[in-house]
Amino acid sequence: MTITGKTKVFMIIGDPVAQVRAPEVYNHLFARHGVDAVVVPMKVAPAHLEAFVGNAFNAENFGGFWVTIPHKAAMQALMRICNPVAEIAGAVNAVRRAPEGGFEGALFDGLGFVKGLDHFGVDVMDRSVLVLGAGGGGQAVAAALAARGPARLSIANRSVDKAQAIIDRLQPRYPIALDCTGNTDPAGFDVIVHCTSQGLSQTDPLPVDPARMNPGAVVVDIIMTKEPTPLLKACRGRGIVAHPGFEMLVQQVPEYMRFFGMPELAETLQHDLGEVRQLLLPR
Amino acid sequence: MTITGKTKVFMIIGDPVAQVRAPEVYNHLFARHGVDAVVVPMKVAPAHLEAFVGNAFNAENFGGFWVTIPHKAAMQALMRICNPVAEIAGAVNAVRRAPEGGFEGALFDGLGFVKGLDHFGVDVMDRSVLVLGAGGGGQAVAAALAARGPARLSIANRSVDKAQAIIDRLQPRYPIALDCTGNTDPAGFDVIVHCTSQGLSQTDPLPVDPARMNPGAVVVDIIMTKEPTPLLKACRGRGIVAHPGFEMLVQQVPEYMRFFGMPELAETLQHDLGEVRQLLLPR
Repeated sequence: MTITGKTKVFMIIGDPVAQVRAPEVYNHLFARHGVDAVVVPMKVAPAHLEAFVGNAFNAENFGGFWVTIPHKAAMQALMRICNPVAEIAGAVNAVRRAPEGGFEGALFDGLGFVKGLDHFGVDVMDRSVLVLGAGGGGQAVAAALAARGPARLSIANRSVDKAQAIIDRLQPRYPIALDCTGNTDPAGFDVIVHCTSQGLSQTDPLPVDPARMNPGAVVVDIIMTKEPTPLLKACRGRGIVAHPGFEMLVQQVPEYMRFFGMPELAETLQHDLGEVRQLLLPR
Repeated sequence: MTITGKTKVFMIIGDPVAQVRAPEVYNHLFARHGVDAVVVPMKVAPAHLEAFVGNAFNAENFGGFWVTIPHKAAMQALMRICNPVAEIAGAVNAVRRAPEGGFEGALFDGLGFVKGLDHFGVDVMDRSVLVLGAGGGGQAVAAALAARGPARLSIANRSVDKAQAIIDRLQPRYPIALDCTGNTDPAGFDVIVHCTSQGLSQTDPLPVDPARMNPGAVVVDIIMTKEPTPLLKACRGRGIVAHPGFEMLVQQVPEYMRFFGMPELAETLQHDLGEVRQLLLPR
């Protein structure tokens, strides 16, 4: 990668930001595919977010933001327009100039998740789906799933109010059976998506009981860890198909490129995601 | 160079900015000497300068600005403190956080110039020096020369008022003979520094007449061109020692590194400037 005076500059904005991998991943892709762009980290405290965002876009060669903790929700509130998943989840992870002025945002977690389902050959249309967890991940996943036309979408969360709030935002858009619950019984569901943080540690208790799952159920655990989570292991031990969340991350990469005005790179990557998988492998 | 979430980010701010070479030069040096930092270009219009600067420093991992046209003077006006050359020339080309809050700036053109004189073995102490031109380059050169204790410093400029304005800023600081003139007669001067743009083109007329120079005079032409300027050629043709401005640029590089909190890299580069010369060669 050679940065010149003509290079388009992107930022990943967060606080902290030391942990992010976007600069390594995307700068590698830009260099490898001849795109004259660079992503740099910017550690900006919440109090400075709004002014920072407006000012960055005043630089003509600034292309946009990757957004990470803790700014995803606050950034969404600054957007003129967003994609539907971002509006429902109240969060964005990408921001660019809006053609009409101001900024526009998008959340690709949900799209990445359902593209991951396609990759695994899991079709949710007309099926019963259980989403465990109503945090950031659960909201994005539920929003993207609802758009795929399941027969029933149920959201389980300890705080049922939080799950109900998502239902309330989904219901006007999607004419499907939506409900929420405080317990995590997976019986009767065709697809079960785990979106809590339970399983980040190998010693965490199972967030849902595989013994209660339908024999033909499919499980996806969106937790990103190097080793399979206890849930994935337990499901596989019972012969239940269980996929890790990694593909959700992989499938988002071409979407970022498309959003940031690099449709050719998006197509190239989508056509062969092997390189992206290699770059994103958990370390 | 690998940019991670921990990388310190610098910007070179200008309008236009496509022509700048700082990203190539400094990113190469950072990569080669193991410094986890990156310089990216930012094209910011004058109307947005002040807000942009303040906001950039709100990012904790932002290190500072390289400043180029047209912002050098406007940026100086935003500084809490500056080095003396910057104050006299009313311009900065580097800005960092001030330990006391706010920003501080520096102009290294002058220091680069006198370090270049040292490199060529030209001592101006107690000698008569003529500076041709009272623009940005001339102001920085005159300020740095004045601090070196010449017997006389004369500034020649078509608009004498502009030369007088520099004299007025220098006089309170430096107890030396200072004068200005509207003509460019080099007779009687030991050192003649050319700081106008006359000579950027090979067909430009000579800005000063070598036939009128003292036989032992030394000439420096600060114009940066690949081929020697007509003035350098004419002087050399008459046996007058004449140096190009390139070294002024080279000698600034360690100063930027010191200013931006990289004293070890500054020392290393100062000790062997060969690599820097190679990187800065006019193309």
